[in-house]
Amino acid sequence: MNLLLLEDADLIAADRALLRGRRLKHLNEVHRAQAGDSLRIGRLGGALGSGRILRLDGEAAEIAVERLDEAAPAKLPITLLLALPRPKMLKRVLQTVASMGVPRLVLLNSYRVEKSFWQTPFLQPAAIREQLILGLEQSRDTHLPEVSIEQRFKPFVEDRLPQLASGTLGLVGHPGDYPACPRAVDAPVTLAIGPEGGWIPYEVDKLREAGLAPVQLGERILRVETAVTALLARLY
Amino acid sequence: MNLLLLEDADLIAADRALLRGRRLKHLNEVHRAQAGDSLRIGRLGGALGSGRILRLDGEAAEIAVERLDEAAPAKLPITLLLALPRPKMLKRVLQTVASMGVPRLVLLNSYRVEKSFWQTPFLQPAAIREQLILGLEQSRDTHLPEVSIEQRFKPFVEDRLPQLASGTLGLVGHPGDYPACPRAVDAPVTLAIGPEGGWIPYEVDKLREAGLAPVQLGERILRVETAVTALLARLY
Repeated sequence: MNLLLLEDADLIAADRALLRGRRLKHLNEVHRAQAGDSLRIGRLGGALGSGRILRLDGEAAEIAVERLDEAAPAKLPITLLLALPRPKMLKRVLQTVASMGVPRLVLLNSYRVEKSFWQTPFLQPAAIREQLILGLEQSRDTHLPEVSIEQRFKPFVEDRLPQLASGTLGLVGHPGDYPACPRAVDAPVTLAIGPEGGWIPYEVDKLREAGLAPVQLGERILRVETAVTALLARLY
Repeated sequence: MNLLLLEDADLIAADRALLRGRRLKHLNEVHRAQAGDSLRIGRLGGALGSGRILRLDGEAAEIAVERLDEAAPAKLPITLLLALPRPKMLKRVLQTVASMGVPRLVLLNSYRVEKSFWQTPFLQPAAIREQLILGLEQSRDTHLPEVSIEQRFKPFVEDRLPQLASGTLGLVGHPGDYPACPRAVDAPVTLAIGPEGGWIPYEVDKLREAGLAPVQLGERILRVETAVTALLARLY
């Protein structure tokens, strides 16, 4: 938690917040903070700044907002389409996506996504939000990425993706005899990353028809979370 | 497990392996493999190829080695120095390091490494090896990275690092007003990545004296595992 991210519900006055639960525990046990300590704070969806701990005990932390006058870091100009990962990986990927500055994430079905993955409680909006908040706290960002869920591959890719990808550099991360993923692009990107085991050829064809060109990252097969980070670091 | 990695102890004849334990379980439960199936195999420290499952049940899997004639993917020309991460992160970082193709890893002390981290059972050689093997299986590599443990920062950085970094591009990943991490370098690199909270100024100075120049990855603070992947993807 490199940033204490304040939400409306935390505020007991315009410049005063009261925390319990996870963040209180973190201040006590990880930061080993004390009354009087200064903290990096941010308003969810707003600015960054600093605060001071007025009171901290086992019950609650009371924080004075001192200033909120810095802009959050810029987002990457990217829309990331991700074949729904297995639940444990999903949690980590959501954190990674938020911490790397991805503003839009689409969780998409694919032939190799196990049907059971769609049943996970980690896909509930509150669970997704929780992981995104952890990612924002990590990277000192305040703006939640938009996450949308597309459980039907074909209608999404045929009917909606062409417009979504229009005017962007469209890419599909896919192992094989494809050009290497470009570096340091100075353009908005629509990037699709497949499931464990990769997209099937039909899916690559459909993504291609929607305007996305296959690119590869070398012969090593990476976990989804690692592939997401590696592709983003290379593109921007 | 994108590769079945065979060790000497698995072989019951020159071209025959018998598996139990984790890999057997994985073949049964994740791959849902059957006798007759073909598999990507590799010899630890050796070549890649293919094998066939002769027998598979709850007790054991018997694998026929069909061919071992492909070279493992090339390693990155890098030595990675990493401030010892917290135990849970250490496990994941070891997998990431192995899967990304880092051949040499030094786990180093730093002021912000909690002393208790050095007591973790995950630092035992067998535990390190286990995580590295998982990373190799992921990325279809056969060569274990060398991991060394340096529990004293100063003597390592003063006495050994200058020689280790000699003839390489020496870099310290560090947030701040430093040049951006270079891209697509065509050179061997020695890269140091700090702990959560970063290196302290004294440590940056010592690393600099040893020939490593600070570089940054932007204003976002990334988890160690994400920073490792992002820096490697940018450098190579």
